[in-house]
Amino acid sequence: MNKAIFFVSLGPGDAELVTIKALRCLENAEAIFCPSTTTKSGKTISRALKIMKTLGIDEGKIHPFDVPMSKERSLTKKDYETTAEKIASYFEKAEKDIVVCAQGDASFYSSVYYISELLTAKNLPIKRIAGVPAFIAAGTLANIHIVKQEERLRVLPGVFTMEELRQECEAKNTVVIMKMSQSEEIIKTAIQDFANTTFHYFENVGVEEKEYYTKSKNEILARKFPYFSLMIIQKSNN
Amino acid sequence: MNKAIFFVSLGPGDAELVTIKALRCLENAEAIFCPSTTTKSGKTISRALKIMKTLGIDEGKIHPFDVPMSKERSLTKKDYETTAEKIASYFEKAEKDIVVCAQGDASFYSSVYYISELLTAKNLPIKRIAGVPAFIAAGTLANIHIVKQEERLRVLPGVFTMEELRQECEAKNTVVIMKMSQSEEIIKTAIQDFANTTFHYFENVGVEEKEYYTKSKNEILARKFPYFSLMIIQKSNN
Repeated sequence: MNKAIFFVSLGPGDAELVTIKALRCLENAEAIFCPSTTTKSGKTISRALKIMKTLGIDEGKIHPFDVPMSKERSLTKKDYETTAEKIASYFEKAEKDIVVCAQGDASFYSSVYYISELLTAKNLPIKRIAGVPAFIAAGTLANIHIVKQEERLRVLPGVFTMEELRQECEAKNTVVIMKMSQSEEIIKTAIQDFANTTFHYFENVGVEEKEYYTKSKNEILARKFPYFSLMIIQKSNN
Repeated sequence: MNKAIFFVSLGPGDAELVTIKALRCLENAEAIFCPSTTTKSGKTISRALKIMKTLGIDEGKIHPFDVPMSKERSLTKKDYETTAEKIASYFEKAEKDIVVCAQGDASFYSSVYYISELLTAKNLPIKRIAGVPAFIAAGTLANIHIVKQEERLRVLPGVFTMEELRQECEAKNTVVIMKMSQSEEIIKTAIQDFANTTFHYFENVGVEEKEYYTKSKNEILARKFPYFSLMIIQKSNN
């Protein structure tokens, strides 16, 4: 019996950007554990679940687990432990592979890493399937080349200083910013201050009805950055 | 007639890491232009072609074009222009979409960007499909989390200084190095010099029979870094 716990990366949101390998694994799994968020009004939201519904995966085998989209990770440590326990005991009785899925790629700023580390500590057989990260899909949406030839890339998540951002931009590095809602003020100041710099702004990449892209500075300044927003900053050619 | 030229990203090498969208596009295309390399002995090598053969794509519609794997980009500018001309004139007569394919993701250090820019300048309808970059697949292969929580990422291609690499590592950033063959000496010195640092070394990620991974410093020091090698550097926990 060679069953394993697969961490399956689902990509940015478009069900067609799931890999052939991930689709096969989802179809063959006995159970799929899937991150979701419960809103203040008690509604369960899960993009991962939506992707799997579009792919025609049997909903009966999907088990959502709650992942609060907040910085207060200490408060959620216990939740992750409870989820990991649940997955481990499910796996013990399972006859086939089970899946824990993640949006984007599971090794790239994904909160399922907590669960992965807890299950690894239990010496359970973990396997993984790579996926398309959101910033890669963003580059495609804007039809830009994220990095080429000898260019360097910096990825900044969450909190950083104005000085750091300025240095990166002046060194002509491409800068990707994830989880932008935490740095809205710094980014908006940078947009007004930095000359010869293009700010590519994205919301909800891969989610057809919500996807938004602009490089107009005024349009970006008018936005309230949601959780699923990201930015690609590049020196302008002129 | 809404035909377009699709730049299709094929992922790191494993045919199953192609997305559903890319597979559908390859199947429906009238012709596929595909990068290849001619060796000194005159043999044509193409990983992209190999991926498509594994996927069962009709070989009759695949047109390889030569991309020398060298730094001498100036020498190849003319080759890219010739290829772009050929694609443009093919597209003019085509009745359906045509594809230009790329390994990894077409916006992430892919040499097809030259062709993309030449065709964009001709005002041809360009569309793109995102793919899994090689460094993401490398993280999966080593079962590591590339970046999590507030960690930063630096991607360095080709040429950089020892000082830059040292600063990045001391700042506890995850560093990804692409096209490592150009910096073999600096990297090997760093491996011997940097304390509390783990060097994850990869060759030919996604190519089943050639894939190689080690984090043993002695094993890395003994390797001659090939063209398809990359590294993920992280501070060790201890």
